[in-house]
Amino acid sequence: MTQNVRLATENDMPKVLELIKELASFERAPDAVEITIDQLKQDGFRQNPAFRCFIGEIDNEIHGMALVYMRYSTWKGEVLHLEDLIIDKKARGLGLGTKLLDAVIKYGYELKVKRVSWVVLDWNKTAIDFYIKKGAHILHGWDIVQLDEQGIKNYISKLD
Amino acid sequence: MTQNVRLATENDMPKVLELIKELASFERAPDAVEITIDQLKQDGFRQNPAFRCFIGEIDNEIHGMALVYMRYSTWKGEVLHLEDLIIDKKARGLGLGTKLLDAVIKYGYELKVKRVSWVVLDWNKTAIDFYIKKGAHILHGWDIVQLDEQGIKNYISKLD
Repeated sequence: MTQNVRLATENDMPKVLELIKELASFERAPDAVEITIDQLKQDGFRQNPAFRCFIGEIDNEIHGMALVYMRYSTWKGEVLHLEDLIIDKKARGLGLGTKLLDAVIKYGYELKVKRVSWVVLDWNKTAIDFYIKKGAHILHGWDIVQLDEQGIKNYISKLD
Repeated sequence: MTQNVRLATENDMPKVLELIKELASFERAPDAVEITIDQLKQDGFRQNPAFRCFIGEIDNEIHGMALVYMRYSTWKGEVLHLEDLIIDKKARGLGLGTKLLDAVIKYGYELKVKRVSWVVLDWNKTAIDFYIKKGAHILHGWDIVQLDEQGIKNYISKLD
């Protein structure tokens, strides 16, 4: 069995969208995925791409992906954020997730960022223990606030 | 009293750094601020700036700021993220924070993003109620994971 991590190309986006949808179904929100293959191609491969995507392969077949982009900390400056790390069901427990995480941290190291960040579900003790073992800190006590498309429209309509 | 919100210029960065440091001191982490005025000028005003900063003024004096940048949702595409909204102690409760938030949501609306996001401390009931009243959803149950500069180095040193 050969495992390989490489940068994604536009041609990988159909499979990447499949992985995104598989995770959304698992999280019981399959209809929340509005993104399309064309949008992913456009956003990820333009002049200043909105993200960078790493592909994880086993025997030359795609079984996982990690998607990252830059954020900005007013304490540290530019930091690398890992938005999604997805391994499909067939490939769990084979070490492909670790290889993808390695590639992400290496990329952050090359960029000389002062931090790599991501989020984890607070009940996912296995993942949290794994991240702590890797040297990460866990920040408790923050909630995520989201104003969605309809919320933005409503907000705007109430301004004078 | 005249309140005004406008885009920041490079010349505002000394005052912006003061606001960042005031908040860090309040959060009992004054030494965590590694960013400098020069770094802020460089990152915020280059060809593809790392962030956009709004300035809140009262009678032509700076009393607040909001700092935003684009993130990428694998469900929605590009989303606007509000990293910091800071009002100095002297100007609390005068409505300047709302004016800055208005400017941020307007900016997201103009960009046609499908979401504006930020985080809030989970004990800050006043803020959470305010955001819900504004139409936002609160996501509980996520922890933030951070691998800092030393952590990145240690991680890399353990790879073959």
